Amino acid sequence: MPPAQTLSTGSVGTVETRYVDLPDPVALDCGRELHPVRVAYETYGTLSPGKDNVILVCHALSGDAHAAGFSTSPAGSTRDGFGAEDRDGSAGKGLGWWDGMIGPGKAFDTDRFFVVCTNLLGGCSGTTGPSSVDPATNQPYGSNFPVITVADMVRTERAFLDVLGIERLAAVAGGSLGGMQALEWAVLYPDQVDALVVIASTHALHPQGVAWNSIARDAIMRDPAWQGGDYYGTGVAPSAGMGVARMVGHITYLSAPALIERFGRRLQFAEDLRYTITEPEFEIESYLRHQADSFVRRFDANTYLFTSRALTYFDLARQYGGGSLAGALDGVSARTLLIAFSSDWLYPPAASREIEEALRSLGKPVECHVIEAPYGHDCFLLEEARQTPIIRQFLAKERSS
Amino acid sequence: MPPAQTLSTGSVGTVETRYVDLPDPVALDCGRELHPVRVAYETYGTLSPGKDNVILVCHALSGDAHAAGFSTSPAGSTRDGFGAEDRDGSAGKGLGWWDGMIGPGKAFDTDRFFVVCTNLLGGCSGTTGPSSVDPATNQPYGSNFPVITVADMVRTERAFLDVLGIERLAAVAGGSLGGMQALEWAVLYPDQVDALVVIASTHALHPQGVAWNSIARDAIMRDPAWQGGDYYGTGVAPSAGMGVARMVGHITYLSAPALIERFGRRLQFAEDLRYTITEPEFEIESYLRHQADSFVRRFDANTYLFTSRALTYFDLARQYGGGSLAGALDGVSARTLLIAFSSDWLYPPAASREIEEALRSLGKPVECHVIEAPYGHDCFLLEEARQTPIIRQFLAKERSS
Repeated sequence: MPPAQTLSTGSVGTVETRYVDLPDPVALDCGRELHPVRVAYETYGTLSPGKDNVILVCHALSGDAHAAGFSTSPAGSTRDGFGAEDRDGSAGKGLGWWDGMIGPGKAFDTDRFFVVCTNLLGGCSGTTGPSSVDPATNQPYGSNFPVITVADMVRTERAFLDVLGIERLAAVAGGSLGGMQALEWAVLYPDQVDALVVIASTHALHPQGVAWNSIARDAIMRDPAWQGGDYYGTGVAPSAGMGVARMVGHITYLSAPALIERFGRRLQFAEDLRYTITEPEFEIESYLRHQADSFVRRFDANTYLFTSRALTYFDLARQYGGGSLAGALDGVSARTLLIAFSSDWLYPPAASREIEEALRSLGKPVECHVIEAPYGHDCFLLEEARQTPIIRQFLAKERSS
Repeated sequence: MPPAQTLSTGSVGTVETRYVDLPDPVALDCGRELHPVRVAYETYGTLSPGKDNVILVCHALSGDAHAAGFSTSPAGSTRDGFGAEDRDGSAGKGLGWWDGMIGPGKAFDTDRFFVVCTNLLGGCSGTTGPSSVDPATNQPYGSNFPVITVADMVRTERAFLDVLGIERLAAVAGGSLGGMQALEWAVLYPDQVDALVVIASTHALHPQGVAWNSIARDAIMRDPAWQGGDYYGTGVAPSAGMGVARMVGHITYLSAPALIERFGRRLQFAEDLRYTITEPEFEIESYLRHQADSFVRRFDANTYLFTSRALTYFDLARQYGGGSLAGALDGVSARTLLIAFSSDWLYPPAASREIEEALRSLGKPVECHVIEAPYGHDCFLLEEARQTPIIRQFLAKERSS
């Protein structure tokens, strides 16, 4: 059991990741099928007899199914209060990556809702992904893993909920890539979703975001240890390249003012330069290396590649609207809550505003909140206190309608 | 001879890079000395009998001495109208990297001024750098090259001008790292500089810029082909890592709106996804790889490392002001022109404003212009037409005073 003080008021307590094997193959956008597919998941709260209180929480690029509560895995929590994306992939250890948002009395209130979180398709924390064994070869998929899309992730989530006997969702919620999944749910299964909570997300990543993701993937693929994707079992992994990818990602998750506030130009060793290119000289250089080192220990490089590719492909207007976002959202029946953060330059508020305008132009119920906060994209993991009343109020309306 | 049409009105014509060997060792901030030091340089215009019409132009991270005119080197010009940092290191080929700014009737008017540009200390285009032979070993310096600073670059420029018999400078001018050198000149040699033209630069890179540079260097140093810096003569070089470094740099030189305008989310092959992680799928992905490939063919990775380190160290307030920028600039006697660009997020206008305010608080002559332009940091190489009247007017004042 964890020490009592790690369980804050409103904790869902000690939790366990479970697994489901889907009975049927998952048909993918690329034309291939995946079978078998295993899905790792956690649940919090109690499923109502009518199965009408389910909220599906979708995680972001580096996350996993452990969204809330305390896992009894031996490793400690990765929550550290800054650079919160660290939490967004606690890989079953310590507190869940959205523990501040999920629990009794919290934004996603487990006294009312049955909250489900799965590790996404292509993941490396229990759900079938590139490191899983390909039944055709009895070897890990590696380079033979199919290139997946956000829609493929959502189809997998749909098939998983079928196994649990859950037809409808009271809400789908997520930040970043998780928000993309929520939007995709509303388009693919309009009759099965009552509400969307889309946080720090977009209908299509802007070109600079596409570029950052491309650079991160190239950093991994240019690492000779990547071996074309077939590094499993070779005793080496592209940790050097994935470290660089993580450092790029990390800086895009934070805002420039947040870096000034946290690190400034402080040197590692008081005010003395050491005249070195190999060693960190500024505090932020040391911090970045630490972030890279801790990430590569817990995450699979191929999962990073396939997930990053999926989120750059995501483009509702192209996929479903012939170039028109309103066209793509025409069939949506869910009520939509959008939350964006003023300092998020990777998923800027403008994208949420575009979704809001498209939905409004279609006469669909939507509200968009832009929270003034300095920590960039990571706000969706950090600004729990300010998101909570907005989300609770939005979900309460659902109940009363 | 180049075809006539490549020589625009106001061209300085065909030019040649020349070389000077400094007679004395250069004393470095790190405590070491470098000897011998060779400096590559070009000159444009005519030195006045009183030697009072000299403008020193300093280049940025990836530049060289070939700032203007047409070089008869066999390779073609790298000017391509976008991603202008490409020009900022044409490595003696084609048109100079600031050809639009230097020539008869141009911003730096060679009908009046004798313009000098050197390849900076640590460079890879003729001036002594990490790829030069260390006389102590008869091998390239590689990992044994000293960690240099912007002040070391400026001391080398000072020693070089001594060889040419030039005592005073009518102006020192540069963009980005070139602007840092100009500021350093005014602090180190206050009695020898009449005017500064500091473009898209700063008194100290902000923490996010420190982070990008750190990531770029790590990308190079994590490439096994880097071999601790001693890759010369081994038949391999850290091209994979330097390509990633260049891609990171390239995106920081441009603005997000410029990427939307130029690339949007256009796919390489019409509207068909190919479902690939290894091949470029978006135009911007292909563009980035092209930028990386062309850069690694012309630039030395160790020069990138040492130059990047120098520009992150640069911090006038720390070096000379005990933390106060005004304190650092107290001894400056040069008139100062600052130009910044509204969309430059790597060297944002705020930094130029801070320099302006510090100089103004000291009662020193300064003017600061923030040009509204969309192309980010690269504007200093692209927005020639809008910088020209500002610079000409500023330099004309000097003549009349």
